[in-house]
Amino acid sequence: MNAVVDAVVDALDALQRTGPLVLCQTNNVVTGFTANVLLAAGCSPAMVDDVEDAEVFAAVADGLLVNLGTLTHERSDAMRAAVGARGDRPWVLDPVAAGPLPARTALARELLAQRPTVLRGNASEILGVAGATSAGRGVDAGDGPEAALGAASDLRERYGCVVAVSGPIDVITDGTVTVRVAGGHPLMTHVTGVGCALGALVAATLAVAPPIIAATAATALLCAAGSRAAEGGVGPGTFAVRLLDRLADLSPAQVVDRVTLS
Amino acid sequence: MNAVVDAVVDALDALQRTGPLVLCQTNNVVTGFTANVLLAAGCSPAMVDDVEDAEVFAAVADGLLVNLGTLTHERSDAMRAAVGARGDRPWVLDPVAAGPLPARTALARELLAQRPTVLRGNASEILGVAGATSAGRGVDAGDGPEAALGAASDLRERYGCVVAVSGPIDVITDGTVTVRVAGGHPLMTHVTGVGCALGALVAATLAVAPPIIAATAATALLCAAGSRAAEGGVGPGTFAVRLLDRLADLSPAQVVDRVTLS
Amino acid sequence: MNAVVDAVVDALDALQRTGPLVLCQTNNVVTGFTANVLLAAGCSPAMVDDVEDAEVFAAVADGLLVNLGTLTHERSDAMRAAVGARGDRPWVLDPVAAGPLPARTALARELLAQRPTVLRGNASEILGVAGATSAGRGVDAGDGPEAALGAASDLRERYGCVVAVSGPIDVITDGTVTVRVAGGHPLMTHVTGVGCALGALVAATLAVAPPIIAATAATALLCAAGSRAAEGGVGPGTFAVRLLDRLADLSPAQVVDRVTLS
Repeated sequence: MNAVVDAVVDALDALQRTGPLVLCQTNNVVTGFTANVLLAAGCSPAMVDDVEDAEVFAAVADGLLVNLGTLTHERSDAMRAAVGARGDRPWVLDPVAAGPLPARTALARELLAQRPTVLRGNASEILGVAGATSAGRGVDAGDGPEAALGAASDLRERYGCVVAVSGPIDVITDGTVTVRVAGGHPLMTHVTGVGCALGALVAATLAVAPPIIAATAATALLCAAGSRAAEGGVGPGTFAVRLLDRLADLSPAQVVDRVTLS
Repeated sequence: MNAVVDAVVDALDALQRTGPLVLCQTNNVVTGFTANVLLAAGCSPAMVDDVEDAEVFAAVADGLLVNLGTLTHERSDAMRAAVGARGDRPWVLDPVAAGPLPARTALARELLAQRPTVLRGNASEILGVAGATSAGRGVDAGDGPEAALGAASDLRERYGCVVAVSGPIDVITDGTVTVRVAGGHPLMTHVTGVGCALGALVAATLAVAPPIIAATAATALLCAAGSRAAEGGVGPGTFAVRLLDRLADLSPAQVVDRVTLS
Repeated sequence: MNAVVDAVVDALDALQRTGPLVLCQTNNVVTGFTANVLLAAGCSPAMVDDVEDAEVFAAVADGLLVNLGTLTHERSDAMRAAVGARGDRPWVLDPVAAGPLPARTALARELLAQRPTVLRGNASEILGVAGATSAGRGVDAGDGPEAALGAASDLRERYGCVVAVSGPIDVITDGTVTVRVAGGHPLMTHVTGVGCALGALVAATLAVAPPIIAATAATALLCAAGSRAAEGGVGPGTFAVRLLDRLADLSPAQVVDRVTLS
């Protein structure tokens, strides 16, 4: 794992140094929090929901996040346009609540066929996209990440994407290498948008690192900030505020000290 | 009132124990705050704005909130689909700014005819839905809850819903019983979305308690958290953060100790 | 500058005393933060995105903000309706990310021809609307405000609007008088929506003061609150919370003491 740890430190260092501009096509529950997470991490967010501008912007943005929460027809079309314009630049697909919801699941599969660089979700969502049965009832994971590993490997083989499954211990796999990130905090599930913000951080980090390292580095950063933010015993309101504070001041070395990669 | 107090404690206890999943069709100003309020109170939020998935999800979600702020054509249709699919499961209608705004008022009346379990709003909105003249200029109540009691009784009789009118002292009536909840804090009106979040909490509590108790329990919970959050004299930014913290740690017994039910 | 300082104090005093109701047609990243900034400053926010209600409400609201982030077709039409219904009442145009994005830029120019009272943006956006080349890559200003002064003067002459350019030192010009506001804090650019919230505060202040004073007063208020909020060295999460706290408790005299007008 030492090579992975070194690569993660380099990726986080490059992230802070370059501050990628990330086009976030995301749901209207988490837009503000997502933008604040990116800003705290030294990146620049941009949100574009209309077809024409999304197409233009996706071709030049450093990163692209496509998150399927609170879909509308217009944003769905803008996502198709953005992905179509992206070419071989990296992008992230976050299939929020795929599985139980038919329209989202269909769009998730349609976009997956466009080969995202990273597919990020909780276990229920990864299983849902893959067509497997899951315990999910929407956005909260009823399955642990390990339960989704088979589906993740299958999706990776079919679509060539790195799959990042979040949970108590996050699992990231590119088919050859599988990395586990431990060290986050349960409060991360008591604030809306933490998983969605992880998708945005992965999209940013893809601008400066290869997919498996980018997904690992972004996950490590968020987990480290989360465990720091929870110190001393705080409620979920204070936790969300401190999460942003910690994202802004953790050094790459502090991040990897704080989490366990295996 | 002792029986009501006991029932409220039982409802809040059941809320924390079961964590209902609430489909929130709500305005884009308060989505994030609403989700965080539900999460802090131990519930699960889900937001779906498209017709197809809203219809599927409304049939299975534990709770449903229909809030008419920042309407779009697509979300209006999704609301109609959700309410249509809801069957006899409970749901909450929050007619934000009904009265002065014609499109919202028309949709509020159309949905009211579908018989929500609870109609929740400030006095201006309740008067606006009922067609009465009010002092309202949009989302802020220019009338006190008592001024809306006549309209509330009328709406209750016509549509069979419990009516919850928020204000300095909240009033909740099912036609037979009228409960007043005192003990909130003026800062609750200096943060956007507190009233909208109350609608979501009522929708959650309807999964575990009868309508008048659910509306009373949710109101008591938010008022108790609000008065705790305001302790020591804080500004509105800090107040909003602490409100979430307090929602997460108040026990049912502490809630009823903190407010006055009459 | 003494006359400007006195007029700014009077404007802020009138703002707190009257609490204007502002119709905000704004992007879905910043809706909640914008509403909370207005509430903290003693004003009332209202958000309406559909055509019919926007037209009705724009005719009576004390203030109107038209902010072009995250456009949709429906909101674009609602903006056209609101501006058309506004008559000679004051309104603010904030052309977020104009320049690189063609659809937004076209709408910005279309609405500019309807003669907003104040055009507010960062230097890249002002240059983008004017058709000049800029260093902008979206919402973050790559140019300083002084670089946009020529474009600002040109836009002012063509469209009769006061132009407010934000940056490390904000510049506000009505063609005759140019005011500079110094004293904000770099953290204001590490939280999403601070510039958008400034547009809303300008829209509110236009209800109680002439355009150049309104734009100056709103800018001074936000800069003073920002510099107070940053005291003691805080992260961006805490900063955003304190910014709301400070907006709620700064007196007009404290505001002008805290910033430098020149």
